[in-house]
Amino acid sequence: MRALVLDHTLRLETNHPTPKVPPGEALIRVLKAGICGTDLQLIDGYMGFTGVLGHEFVGIIEQSRDRKNLVGQRVVGEINAACRTCPTCLADRLTHCPHRTTLGIDGRNGAFADYLCLPVENLHVLPDQITDDQAVFVEPLAAACHILQQVRVTTTDRVIVVGDGKLGLLCAQVLKSTGCHLSIVGHHPDGLAFLAQRGIRTVTHPDELFQAFDLVVEATGSAEGLRIAGRLVRPRGTLLVKSTYRGNISMDMTNFVINEVTLIGSRCGPFEPAIQMLQQGLVDVESLIHARYPLDRGLDAVECAGTKGSLKILLEMG
Amino acid sequence: MRALVLDHTLRLETNHPTPKVPPGEALIRVLKAGICGTDLQLIDGYMGFTGVLGHEFVGIIEQSRDRKNLVGQRVVGEINAACRTCPTCLADRLTHCPHRTTLGIDGRNGAFADYLCLPVENLHVLPDQITDDQAVFVEPLAAACHILQQVRVTTTDRVIVVGDGKLGLLCAQVLKSTGCHLSIVGHHPDGLAFLAQRGIRTVTHPDELFQAFDLVVEATGSAEGLRIAGRLVRPRGTLLVKSTYRGNISMDMTNFVINEVTLIGSRCGPFEPAIQMLQQGLVDVESLIHARYPLDRGLDAVECAGTKGSLKILLEMG
Repeated sequence: MRALVLDHTLRLETNHPTPKVPPGEALIRVLKAGICGTDLQLIDGYMGFTGVLGHEFVGIIEQSRDRKNLVGQRVVGEINAACRTCPTCLADRLTHCPHRTTLGIDGRNGAFADYLCLPVENLHVLPDQITDDQAVFVEPLAAACHILQQVRVTTTDRVIVVGDGKLGLLCAQVLKSTGCHLSIVGHHPDGLAFLAQRGIRTVTHPDELFQAFDLVVEATGSAEGLRIAGRLVRPRGTLLVKSTYRGNISMDMTNFVINEVTLIGSRCGPFEPAIQMLQQGLVDVESLIHARYPLDRGLDAVECAGTKGSLKILLEMG
Repeated sequence: MRALVLDHTLRLETNHPTPKVPPGEALIRVLKAGICGTDLQLIDGYMGFTGVLGHEFVGIIEQSRDRKNLVGQRVVGEINAACRTCPTCLADRLTHCPHRTTLGIDGRNGAFADYLCLPVENLHVLPDQITDDQAVFVEPLAAACHILQQVRVTTTDRVIVVGDGKLGLLCAQVLKSTGCHLSIVGHHPDGLAFLAQRGIRTVTHPDELFQAFDLVVEATGSAEGLRIAGRLVRPRGTLLVKSTYRGNISMDMTNFVINEVTLIGSRCGPFEPAIQMLQQGLVDVESLIHARYPLDRGLDAVECAGTKGSLKILLEMG
């Protein structure tokens, strides 16, 4: 099969072995996949991953020994494959299983290929109303939905998202669904205009809003974004950190202590709320599609995803 | 009056003007005061404070225009003087009032003197059973009690305090009152023996306990302590940061995000719980007294407080 393989550099292989399906797993024919900021970080050496890249996808189940009724179903898949037997799993923190593998990120081949394998428990059959394009966004949208699992957001809360990239635009839409007073900091005119249409206040000079927010969501992945977020959060407010960072970050921790800020790290989220939000039309993900590439042009697609201001790039297996 | 005055360097003044009492405030004759790690940081230039140092004290009210019945009462005092009219105060976050002054720390002369002033609302009349020595610990003990206002701790929680200095020993005793499974990381044999007697597990090689704790309380004020704390907290656990730090700290923020750790900054706490804990004998503070100095030997006292392994130094106004 074809696959975009990362092994220090990224290359397109045309005769990569089709995966053998382990017990408890399903073989999925990938229809479309999305390129994420994390993919670009992995190419830069983050996690030291080698293998097939990609973790946002929609596909059709081709083989499933244990659950044959699933064959032919269109699915999306949660990316962390947990052991389901260790104390962490039994405490219902599957995404933190110390024995986990993660699709296209850690110890498991990913979705930028014609086929992938995932445990059957990780798969979610999609309702017909959700298009393939929309379905590719379920994984990052789930990460955005996770915010609402971690923090209670009410209509009177003053909330701001820092960063108007792909992740920021999803987080803003999810937060908007709560009815809170929502702002976003960014500098991409298209992204900000998209959100302004949806009733979200857009901010380009954030330092004027010193300590004005109950909840700040940092979605830039940059040290500068984290610095801005730290200035925007009010004393005893919450700073939810939705991004990972390149290397260590120099932080004024004393400022967080004096202001008694709560910092919450946030990673993968639950798929069902994301699927429901798409089904109910609460989130517009299709406007975030920047370009489409066939898998054969995967290297060009990744290059395009790396250009400044680029939104979601889809790979189509065709 | 006599006063230990910080103005780039610390000096003892013997004819410092006795404070004039502003409306709404009381004049307090200081009986005893305690030297805190923050005092040492202030001497090193933290906050740029100039004025009379000191914020842990017990004293007698000598003047109180508005509440004359308080005159002669023995009191301790909350150190943040808030405006009580701004949005932050009206939201009941008095210790975060942007217009606040803080006793011996920011914009207000402190307790290493014969007299100090504080707003009447800040004062707590002490029950007779609490000795003067114990009373000096109400302020730092309140900071330790604040942990239980910020985090719910249950008997099944695995909790560890990092740091067996003055603050760590108070935090450990407060946490022990919850019945949780409590450990402490330290390297001072006396402090650890004191806690071991109280049924607290003492740890000298913390790296063996990787991600073993639901709640970690960082009480060292050092970058190394924060690094250790970050390794001890389990995925989705809580790291409560009780100390301030010298300058910026280089942090692996990505690790906190991947493990979805909650970091909570923690500062001053409520006096009533601290007074109650002392009254009920739940906390032994007198064992933490390292030495006593008369105010006239204040500079020696501060030097002693700065020596490694020193616990609480009391200044006695006599």
